[in-house]
Amino acid sequence: MRQGSHSPIGVFDSGVGGLTVLKALMERLPHESALYLGDTARVPYGTKSGEVVTRYSLKNAEFLMERGIKLLVVACNTASAVALPALSAALPVPVLGVIGPGARAALRKTRGGGVGVIGTPGTVRSGAYQRELQAAEPNVRVKARACPLFVPLAEEGWTAGEVPRLVAREYLTDFAQDGVDTLVLGCTHYPLLKTVIAEVVGPRVALVDSAEATAEAVAALLGERGMLASPGPTPAYGYFVTDVPERFVEVGARFLGRPIPTAEQVDLSF
Amino acid sequence: MRQGSHSPIGVFDSGVGGLTVLKALMERLPHESALYLGDTARVPYGTKSGEVVTRYSLKNAEFLMERGIKLLVVACNTASAVALPALSAALPVPVLGVIGPGARAALRKTRGGGVGVIGTPGTVRSGAYQRELQAAEPNVRVKARACPLFVPLAEEGWTAGEVPRLVAREYLTDFAQDGVDTLVLGCTHYPLLKTVIAEVVGPRVALVDSAEATAEAVAALLGERGMLASPGPTPAYGYFVTDVPERFVEVGARFLGRPIPTAEQVDLSF
Repeated sequence: MRQGSHSPIGVFDSGVGGLTVLKALMERLPHESALYLGDTARVPYGTKSGEVVTRYSLKNAEFLMERGIKLLVVACNTASAVALPALSAALPVPVLGVIGPGARAALRKTRGGGVGVIGTPGTVRSGAYQRELQAAEPNVRVKARACPLFVPLAEEGWTAGEVPRLVAREYLTDFAQDGVDTLVLGCTHYPLLKTVIAEVVGPRVALVDSAEATAEAVAALLGERGMLASPGPTPAYGYFVTDVPERFVEVGARFLGRPIPTAEQVDLSF
Repeated sequence: MRQGSHSPIGVFDSGVGGLTVLKALMERLPHESALYLGDTARVPYGTKSGEVVTRYSLKNAEFLMERGIKLLVVACNTASAVALPALSAALPVPVLGVIGPGARAALRKTRGGGVGVIGTPGTVRSGAYQRELQAAEPNVRVKARACPLFVPLAEEGWTAGEVPRLVAREYLTDFAQDGVDTLVLGCTHYPLLKTVIAEVVGPRVALVDSAEATAEAVAALLGERGMLASPGPTPAYGYFVTDVPERFVEVGARFLGRPIPTAEQVDLSF
């Protein structure tokens, strides 16, 4: 299918988490149409190897390409961390991840040059945030920590109370005492635990959520290339999932901040 | 490949959890060889739909059948709960799950007829334990609860201390006050949290782990059909995974109670 400025933006994630990125895109670019694919049959990506996450990412991208997207947003931090080079090499459209924009947003916020990054084991192990931060600002001090239990807590809706507070303390107490003044929420699920995380790290640590920074980067890139949709027909949004859609539609509305009318189940064999 | 009594037993699970079942098999049937497949590229199954879990289960079974197994053990409670009819219909060898044996073991243990079942959302939603228990003993009272955070806690090794204790209290406190005298650990990960679970439900509730009951059922079935391996050459064990093997080999040893020398990564596309 041929792409034009009115073609949709493609967004994929391992599940519902990337809907926070889609939400920021809808707000920043209200004239753009978008197609969202959540790979719910294989979720989560964060505990899997780079090799497997790259394989899944290429298949997700291929599915969206077949539907004529003009640009791909990798809304999953783990996939952004490990699969961006392979995706950029394979795709004829621009590809944007969430890590570059998140890292640059953190560098704009830090006062003392101490940046913390929390994410899935896959994201942290990849060192992608650390590389992006130090490439842009060699003097930045980076401290990264994997917080694997945050994803199941957010998915189950355990975002307040004693359990998430204890888990957050276990992971994060020393961040606040270590010269870190800015903390990147390097997983799209973590903004749901923002209140608890903020409480544990204290008011002197600024939290960075990559979703808005990514929407800003998409706007800039489409603008530069003359690919912005002009105001006109109402934008269209389409949702695809690889497992049955019921839970995605229900939980996803919490992440997107608006109802998801329907999601189509697609069978991607890989 | 043709099966004989010296053909291996096939065992599959979504990941490492089913190794507790393989361990029980090795102890109960020391002359049997076995092939174990952990679908680590798609783990976990417990939060996915019955449709997707059945699709994955059929592919896992096909892989093991090609390697000449004489009997299939579905070591995953979620797959046992939703995919057993499809597997039995598709396979030319006997298929055993963990739910029937676990339910019968619970009925042998209960004194007052109150049985609790804890498992993944997929297992509990399927109602498989409830059906097995009530088919065998119509007067049994069954209370089931999904405990989705137990799997990530066990996988991350958070099996002792304040966090698992709080989570267990949140899920289980009322079980102990509700006439339940027997609790089925309806997920192969849960035995790793046995100490914490026992503490929360108290000494009057007996815990049932399906692994030993399943090994007993396999021994009985092979015996009846004259398919037991006779003492002779050292049994051989083979391990296969769908993601990179490093973490499986490392974490798996905790579940199996002995080292896993090596695991072969196989690419099952589905």
